Amino acid sequence: MEALNKQLDFIIELDKLKGVYRQALVKSDKNRFENSAEHSWHISLTAQILQEYAEEKVDISRVMSMLLIHDIVEIDAGDMFAFSDKKALAEQKDKEIKAATRLFGLLPEKQFQAFNDLWLEFEHAETIDARFAKAMDSVLPLLQNMRNEGGSWVNHKVKKSQVMKRNNFLEGLAPQLWLYVCQQIDIAVAKGWLQDG
Amino acid sequence: MEALNKQLDFIIELDKLKGVYRQALVKSDKNRFENSAEHSWHISLTAQILQEYAEEKVDISRVMSMLLIHDIVEIDAGDMFAFSDKKALAEQKDKEIKAATRLFGLLPEKQFQAFNDLWLEFEHAETIDARFAKAMDSVLPLLQNMRNEGGSWVNHKVKKSQVMKRNNFLEGLAPQLWLYVCQQIDIAVAKGWLQDG
Repeated sequence: MEALNKQLDFIIELDKLKGVYRQALVKSDKNRFENSAEHSWHISLTAQILQEYAEEKVDISRVMSMLLIHDIVEIDAGDMFAFSDKKALAEQKDKEIKAATRLFGLLPEKQFQAFNDLWLEFEHAETIDARFAKAMDSVLPLLQNMRNEGGSWVNHKVKKSQVMKRNNFLEGLAPQLWLYVCQQIDIAVAKGWLQDG
Repeated sequence: MEALNKQLDFIIELDKLKGVYRQALVKSDKNRFENSAEHSWHISLTAQILQEYAEEKVDISRVMSMLLIHDIVEIDAGDMFAFSDKKALAEQKDKEIKAATRLFGLLPEKQFQAFNDLWLEFEHAETIDARFAKAMDSVLPLLQNMRNEGGSWVNHKVKKSQVMKRNNFLEGLAPQLWLYVCQQIDIAVAKGWLQDG
């Protein structure tokens, strides 16, 4: 039962991600902040729905797994706004690597390796699966902000160039989605939700 | 772009599941009620972690997909406590079938069929994948209640026999998990968290 007990401890530890809040707002629930657990659910489904737009076929099972686990490190490291400054983002990266070791380390050795490797693959964003997963992680907040008068962009005075750069994974990877994102960004600038520049 | 627009509308509609609250409590976030979106994330990962305990190999990609979508119908139908009376549960079933048609119907035809079929497979609980998914949907609330002094069982005066019946999927399907669940239920009765009978 030793392996099972480790796995159950990890599963219970995951509950804490429901208490890690992001800058994104949930329009349909009184515009409260979104937590990283429900966000992970939402982008895993988004990947499944939009997989046909990937130019090169993705392994959707791996993509979903990556997206389900990609924010678990935030249980220890907390969430950091995507458009924070470089120094803060670099410090966050260090915290997240320590967090991955502690959290995935709750699992039996073989599963620890598998989860840690999958999380690192997502972070490095070199494989097609990881790049598609990363793209989903940036396209969904854009959709949410567009339906919510700019949402977190307005609160944090985000610039067009920052959102373009963050969504750049889509170019080449999923051209139809990239075209859509570029159009939406122009609309957001015209409406004053994103700063031009 | 017509298919893409439908898919994006569906993705945005999914946001509403973050505002559907269940009877389960999130211990790590001030014991507030859990919503169905974060619950769906948690059981999808639970399935992935515990898949090795299935006697017959499950297709984990299908199981995860089922669990990611299994509660989407609650956007229209609301959540119903698993231990509600039979009449209420039957009425709920009708509402959920209508909800599936409207919600999955937002998607392009082919995806509508695929999602609706997968949801029905989960509901009917006849295939191994669906039975394993159902088992995860009952084992996780048990784990949560055991770590939270009985949680929703205490609030609703739930009986041992109800929890045994609900977790019965595990018998045969995953004997080691079934053994664990039976032990936990006995502990819960001894502690007064579940009513004996």
